[in-house]
Amino acid sequence: MYRTVTCGDLRITHVSQSVTLAGWVQSSRNLGGMTFIDLRDRYGITQLVFNLEDNEELCLAARKLGREYVIQIKGTVRERSAKNANRPTGDVEIQVTELVVLNASSVPPFTIEDESDGGEELRMKYRYLDIRRNPVKEKLLFRHQIALETRKYLSELQFTEIETPYLIKSTPEGARDFVVPSRMNQGQFYALPQSPQTFKQILMVAGMDRYFQIVRCFRDEDLRADRQPEFTQIDCEMAFVEEEDILITFEGLMKHLFKTILQIELPDFPRMSYDEALRDYGSDKPDLRFDMKIQHLNDSLKDKGFAVFDNAELVAGIVCKGIGESYSNKDINDLTDWVKRPQIGAKGLVYIKYNQDGSLKSSVGKFFTDEQLKELAQKVGAEAGDLLLILAGTHDATLKQCGELRLEMARRMNLMKPGEFKAFWVLDFPLLEWDEESQRFFAMHHPFTSPLPQDMHKLNSSDKDTLKSIRAAAYDMVINGAEVGGGSIRIHDRALQAQNFKLLGFTEEEAEAQFGFLLGAFEYGAPPHGGIAFGLDRVCAIMQGSTSIRDYIAFPKNNQGRDMMIDAPSALELKQLNELGVSVMQK
Amino acid sequence: MYRTVTCGDLRITHVSQSVTLAGWVQSSRNLGGMTFIDLRDRYGITQLVFNLEDNEELCLAARKLGREYVIQIKGTVRERSAKNANRPTGDVEIQVTELVVLNASSVPPFTIEDESDGGEELRMKYRYLDIRRNPVKEKLLFRHQIALETRKYLSELQFTEIETPYLIKSTPEGARDFVVPSRMNQGQFYALPQSPQTFKQILMVAGMDRYFQIVRCFRDEDLRADRQPEFTQIDCEMAFVEEEDILITFEGLMKHLFKTILQIELPDFPRMSYDEALRDYGSDKPDLRFDMKIQHLNDSLKDKGFAVFDNAELVAGIVCKGIGESYSNKDINDLTDWVKRPQIGAKGLVYIKYNQDGSLKSSVGKFFTDEQLKELAQKVGAEAGDLLLILAGTHDATLKQCGELRLEMARRMNLMKPGEFKAFWVLDFPLLEWDEESQRFFAMHHPFTSPLPQDMHKLNSSDKDTLKSIRAAAYDMVINGAEVGGGSIRIHDRALQAQNFKLLGFTEEEAEAQFGFLLGAFEYGAPPHGGIAFGLDRVCAIMQGSTSIRDYIAFPKNNQGRDMMIDAPSALELKQLNELGVSVMQK
Repeated sequence: MYRTVTCGDLRITHVSQSVTLAGWVQSSRNLGGMTFIDLRDRYGITQLVFNLEDNEELCLAARKLGREYVIQIKGTVRERSAKNANRPTGDVEIQVTELVVLNASSVPPFTIEDESDGGEELRMKYRYLDIRRNPVKEKLLFRHQIALETRKYLSELQFTEIETPYLIKSTPEGARDFVVPSRMNQGQFYALPQSPQTFKQILMVAGMDRYFQIVRCFRDEDLRADRQPEFTQIDCEMAFVEEEDILITFEGLMKHLFKTILQIELPDFPRMSYDEALRDYGSDKPDLRFDMKIQHLNDSLKDKGFAVFDNAELVAGIVCKGIGESYSNKDINDLTDWVKRPQIGAKGLVYIKYNQDGSLKSSVGKFFTDEQLKELAQKVGAEAGDLLLILAGTHDATLKQCGELRLEMARRMNLMKPGEFKAFWVLDFPLLEWDEESQRFFAMHHPFTSPLPQDMHKLNSSDKDTLKSIRAAAYDMVINGAEVGGGSIRIHDRALQAQNFKLLGFTEEEAEAQFGFLLGAFEYGAPPHGGIAFGLDRVCAIMQGSTSIRDYIAFPKNNQGRDMMIDAPSALELKQLNELGVSVMQK
Repeated sequence: MYRTVTCGDLRITHVSQSVTLAGWVQSSRNLGGMTFIDLRDRYGITQLVFNLEDNEELCLAARKLGREYVIQIKGTVRERSAKNANRPTGDVEIQVTELVVLNASSVPPFTIEDESDGGEELRMKYRYLDIRRNPVKEKLLFRHQIALETRKYLSELQFTEIETPYLIKSTPEGARDFVVPSRMNQGQFYALPQSPQTFKQILMVAGMDRYFQIVRCFRDEDLRADRQPEFTQIDCEMAFVEEEDILITFEGLMKHLFKTILQIELPDFPRMSYDEALRDYGSDKPDLRFDMKIQHLNDSLKDKGFAVFDNAELVAGIVCKGIGESYSNKDINDLTDWVKRPQIGAKGLVYIKYNQDGSLKSSVGKFFTDEQLKELAQKVGAEAGDLLLILAGTHDATLKQCGELRLEMARRMNLMKPGEFKAFWVLDFPLLEWDEESQRFFAMHHPFTSPLPQDMHKLNSSDKDTLKSIRAAAYDMVINGAEVGGGSIRIHDRALQAQNFKLLGFTEEEAEAQFGFLLGAFEYGAPPHGGIAFGLDRVCAIMQGSTSIRDYIAFPKNNQGRDMMIDAPSALELKQLNELGVSVMQK
């Protein structure tokens, strides 16, 4: 070993010990007769001292060390005269007696500091330097802890981690597959799994009872910000369970992670239905760190002579507590522009300010009496000093816009406090989603999701609205406005699965070609089962209050799906293509 | 939950408790007034009793249950009159009061028993039924334990599990890559990693210090028996270490696995050099459960007038203790046929029997005096009752043949005892391997392996034999004749790495195109580092004394690389190919 201790080990109790250290030169200060070097490794930083008078040759050698040189030193631990309370090793320094340069370094293209001067592209190209920075390193260490504690928790509960194959079969349903040409079966292709969904169900049929896997998933989608073509799931499945069993088990997992890693005791997770979530928050993954429920105002504001409201399917709004008088006309105009952005899509914004002196100010003052607006205030719980913001339009769009406005106001009012967590379940998602363009139903979760028992009878209906109203035994875990996991009770009956495929527009031949093995498995004693999957990177980001998942991934790809460091993908040699029996089309 | 206890839970202490159980019908016996059903789940088997007199309807329903039906029952635990000592639940049975059929089952295509009547192909197609069998299920559970304990051990030692990407860049060196066409970068391809070798080295440059990952690797090779196109590695790397540190750390891992999972304390691992291993055992992964070292006999047997020996580069043999007189002429002939098989390739086999009465019998008796052969016996440690088997030919081939013969004799003499483990290290592998066909050197381990410091000076030689004699800081862990893991100290100096690439026939442009990112990383302070990788399935198989890794993989592929259950690979829709910009060549 090149060291007896790491750069994070030494304390005042080690004074006068002889030690060997190795690491990177973080910084160097030359103060006349003394040269100080901060030596860094994964575990911390330790200060080295070279004294010109004591050992001139050594001190001069030390002065030649550049940033990020890799060195090994021997020396004696001594107490620092000027201690550094911000650093665990800040009480001591090493009086160096021997120095070996293990490797030199060119000047790095950006500084290896918590706040780097490197842009995104540079950081990705030199990811090995980026990872040396504390914020990135700490995120990778955090991710390891999350994965390890997940495995411990689930293994204690007799879940077995079972690896499922990565070279599987392409199923055109759902997102686009990455595919892999087979050399031994020319003209045929494997696909990389979008998730191990069918395999984990097969494992339940196989009697494995409780399965999990921390597993890579692949989706060849056009990449939006913060989406990766490969990402990691905590994938779980249980047999002989009902929805309640799964909710309890995985609420337990999240509580375990928060407790062991953040020392936070999460309370029991509240539950709300998908319908409630949309009605009250305009979103199926509301942020509950603040209240600000959507107020449905049709009864109070429609048919009072204001055409915009009268023609709307839905008039709805939110009460912003205590900001009525501090919100200027400019603020309101700014907010109006914000809701009119194409991403939000509202036609306009109506406001009512309830002033402290009992007066009112509103953009629709001339259409409503003060009396009507005060009655409204009472109904929605607005008090003196509050601001009521109102949107109107078609039902679904207005709810969604109110949901977005709610989040935006919370950001502007700074209502989302770091370190605060609101975790809960959203239940009873719709089974089917109607696609206007292709005039067919898609599975909202996936084609293996079971309807709720009480809605099972609706499956035989030919009425579109009846079919739309079928609820699924599907659930999402939501924390601070992000879906961290989701799952469902699965169909385990071959006939019901066939019926569901039919509803989703599969011909019998298509269903058989793509999922015949699963339908076949259901013939040999499939137990009732269900499961859930969590986005590992998402869980990490939420727990640390981070907005991006990218730094939890050691080697992420950019928005063009490229790895900037290794420069992949890349062209193949013709010989390779010939062996595979595929050719590249000319554009 | 569909159950209050599992089929493995109940003991005599539970008698008179009311329980709910769910599982599969393993078997059913109808004894007139009583019907017995063995109910199975992952955790065990519990006997159910239905009494015709007590509840006729229930009993008749139970008689209709076929094998592998999934049922749920309620009932009362009671003591069995005829106990079954072979089963943990064998003291009790359930007097059933309620029965629900959760799912029916067709008659399975093979029996779900420890010794199944299903052939390999049928078992693979219906893998979900195969996994219900104890021997397969137990192997998957064992594998989970190995992975979990590996993670615990390494995490305790501050190793961080870091996921490296699966969509990387093709490097034509080494085995053949599986490739993935990029839709967003048409004409370009990702490759699936053969191992995360370069990424783990990059992580060392990135300062992560101690990395591991239980990771899938992919090789598009023609499949020999027991090789899989995707397989799992325990992949590890450490910075600031010398070879000794790695040997100690991972010897520790293996001891930990044997102790926690098999309750076996492995002694410290002996070490031998690659040269010693070849000289004494004719193999770089000898089985040391038995001794039977190869005896080099040139001094005793050459130039005595027997042309076969006189013309040979090497005359060598093994002493088989105690079987001299029991080995018949037929046995010898049989063994002679065996060594002449093309897989072994010997020209013939010479034997000398040292009889208990002091007499000798040998196939080369007329070429040597009894005196000479007795002197030989003394030299090789052969005693009365022993059999000496001798091969002759070119040096390397004869050693290898002796190694194979040694293993074969151990099998025939039953010298390899189940439950016995001999683990050790083979060190100092050659750096380079000369390929006659392409007239160039290949890396024996891989191109990132460091030469031993004491052989470093030979790198500049242009003499082929000097280059061949360069030893690498490379090591294999061998247990019971199988290589379970291997690794090396890596090059961390850019100039040395460039020199090594040159030795391996890379042009500067090729080295830059394929490994430029690694060479680049070496410019920014690369620490000394090294690592190792274990075959997870191999480790499992060795520890359980199994000869095949296939059943440790939940969903293995067959020798044509096909998944028989899901029927992959398969043809793609033309639309998919067009999107990817690739086409299938017509044969």
